[in-house]
Amino acid sequence: MARTMNFNAGPAALPLAALERARQELTDFAGSGMSVMEHSHRGKDYEKVHDEAIALLRELLDVRDTHEVLFLQGGASQMFAQIPMNLLEEGSVADYVVTGAWGEKALSEAKAVAKLFDADVHLACSTGTGDGKEKSYVRAPLPSEVNVTPRAAYLHVTSNETIHGVEFEADAARPFPQGGGVPLVVDMSSDFLWKKLDVSRFGLVYAGAQKNIGPSGIVVAIVSKELVAKGRKDIPKIFQLRTHAENKSLYNTPPTFGVYMVRNVLAWLKEQGGLPAMEARNRQKAAKLYSVIDANTGFFRCPVEKQIRSVMNVVFRLPSEQQEEALVAEAKKRGMVGLKGHRSVGGIRVSTYNAVEPAWVDALCELMQEFAKRG
Amino acid sequence: MARTMNFNAGPAALPLAALERARQELTDFAGSGMSVMEHSHRGKDYEKVHDEAIALLRELLDVRDTHEVLFLQGGASQMFAQIPMNLLEEGSVADYVVTGAWGEKALSEAKAVAKLFDADVHLACSTGTGDGKEKSYVRAPLPSEVNVTPRAAYLHVTSNETIHGVEFEADAARPFPQGGGVPLVVDMSSDFLWKKLDVSRFGLVYAGAQKNIGPSGIVVAIVSKELVAKGRKDIPKIFQLRTHAENKSLYNTPPTFGVYMVRNVLAWLKEQGGLPAMEARNRQKAAKLYSVIDANTGFFRCPVEKQIRSVMNVVFRLPSEQQEEALVAEAKKRGMVGLKGHRSVGGIRVSTYNAVEPAWVDALCELMQEFAKRG
Repeated sequence: MARTMNFNAGPAALPLAALERARQELTDFAGSGMSVMEHSHRGKDYEKVHDEAIALLRELLDVRDTHEVLFLQGGASQMFAQIPMNLLEEGSVADYVVTGAWGEKALSEAKAVAKLFDADVHLACSTGTGDGKEKSYVRAPLPSEVNVTPRAAYLHVTSNETIHGVEFEADAARPFPQGGGVPLVVDMSSDFLWKKLDVSRFGLVYAGAQKNIGPSGIVVAIVSKELVAKGRKDIPKIFQLRTHAENKSLYNTPPTFGVYMVRNVLAWLKEQGGLPAMEARNRQKAAKLYSVIDANTGFFRCPVEKQIRSVMNVVFRLPSEQQEEALVAEAKKRGMVGLKGHRSVGGIRVSTYNAVEPAWVDALCELMQEFAKRG
Repeated sequence: MARTMNFNAGPAALPLAALERARQELTDFAGSGMSVMEHSHRGKDYEKVHDEAIALLRELLDVRDTHEVLFLQGGASQMFAQIPMNLLEEGSVADYVVTGAWGEKALSEAKAVAKLFDADVHLACSTGTGDGKEKSYVRAPLPSEVNVTPRAAYLHVTSNETIHGVEFEADAARPFPQGGGVPLVVDMSSDFLWKKLDVSRFGLVYAGAQKNIGPSGIVVAIVSKELVAKGRKDIPKIFQLRTHAENKSLYNTPPTFGVYMVRNVLAWLKEQGGLPAMEARNRQKAAKLYSVIDANTGFFRCPVEKQIRSVMNVVFRLPSEQQEEALVAEAKKRGMVGLKGHRSVGGIRVSTYNAVEPAWVDALCELMQEFAKRG
């Protein structure tokens, strides 16, 4: 079958080259007569892949020796708990900026940890409006709107809210909040690796792999050695970032096939020209979609403030839910999937991660224009 | 290249049929024009695989409605911490039976959790001897040697110690310790699914997938609804077994490719005749190896007490380390890998999980006999 145009929010489209590479050597990795999945994580064949994945991350993001690159498990959802477990102690405070549903979840898990540790969690800013269970999020705060606690253990931000299509630093007018001396901890699950990043600004960035990095089941974390050293030593070893830093993420068996796929994806990314090339490609895809929306404001409506519109997840509404359903159905007929908005907000969501081909976006824009013309 | 005879301790050999199935549809799963890795975990194509994997586990092990079947992340090493986090509370006690290095690790993580929760952990029995950092383990206790705390929160046992080759219930003379009314919690990482199991005897059994179930990065847990309900509600949601039970292990994004591979492995297992067929096949492989060892006691030496010798990991020594190295080197020339004992104990270790072909064991036995003859 022809390749489906996959706009899934995550797990999402992967580069075909990375998948083909896996297919070709699935039962015979590097001439070993075994699948990469069957290799010991302590053997030199797997170790080479593991090291290459770390080296590619360091190279693509220019990660200096001040920061560790870790592969972890449990998804970003586990990091919501694991980060405060490492960094909160009796009497300390962590600050949270909430700009969508994922920020809410991170805050909620941190509160549970804080309660166990006699620490505090402080909402430094929320852009949510509405009283219902499902708040509406359509903007991100200016640095001046964020009320950071002096000497907080860290300031947590969600860089891109996948459900709401709200992204920090897609536009220079909405930089990440500044914590003064407070370490900035950022969940970049859905907008990691689509453009360059000055890693030195962050205490910790983390990302579930299943958007821009690889398959689900693996988390990439880049964390300053300073924060690693500050981490609690009285929590179980498996949850200490220190443990994974000291063991090159081989303290226990890593998800070896996941790391292998990450290596394949990163190798593809580098071949494409690295992050500057990705940024150009991604900005172009998003600009096309937003221009169709903005050229047809009587028909399409993007609820998100312009400076904060996500380059990774473009969300918009049609005049009626019936028309939204019709668009999804017609798209499916033409080989496009993954366009339904998250169940909590409805509408349409187009995820345009690195592996989403510009031609797929063109095909979708064409369909959108047909719908707008029809009215 | 011809298929390598893989005796790795884990990640380990997988059934070739399960790998071939993955290879054939790696870029086009079920005619969808996408890899299974690219499917949403909320979509019906993936959900079918997820449900089938759970259904196959229930069928193969005859898991009744009293128990939940969960897919978790973080490896058995994370379960060492996550189980006491769920089941310990202020003033309560958990009992541990230690018969090797994995039991030591489980105990150590439980102690860290107990300290945070003002609870206690009690060593109900250890068979370790020696004062050094690396204790020696060559036996398992009779039920009468295990000193269970009345009303303990649970009694934790490691059913098979991969490093030491020590396994409970490989022989009827060494049943699992009895906890009276205390729920039995068993780490079955390296001997899950090789024979039938009366699940109703256990409060919780868990296993990292990378031995008998699939690739690394996924944990299977079978837990009684009673224990799930008893779990703490004040720990982060992601660590509550309740969360995963209530959401069919889809609370957050599961390692979808891992679950898919588990499905492929379980489908193969069923096709082979299920667990009774696996037990016959595995007992035969282990019996062959032990018979070569016991027929050449002047040359080979298995340090493990007979009733407790593992069917999954056969460990033995040769007269000298040089001869051990020579055996490993000669085996490699003949296409056999993964025979070196764990670095902490040395010697030879032959892991004979489900996917290890009887013919591979025959080839190894032949080589062992040649070595014994040569002397």
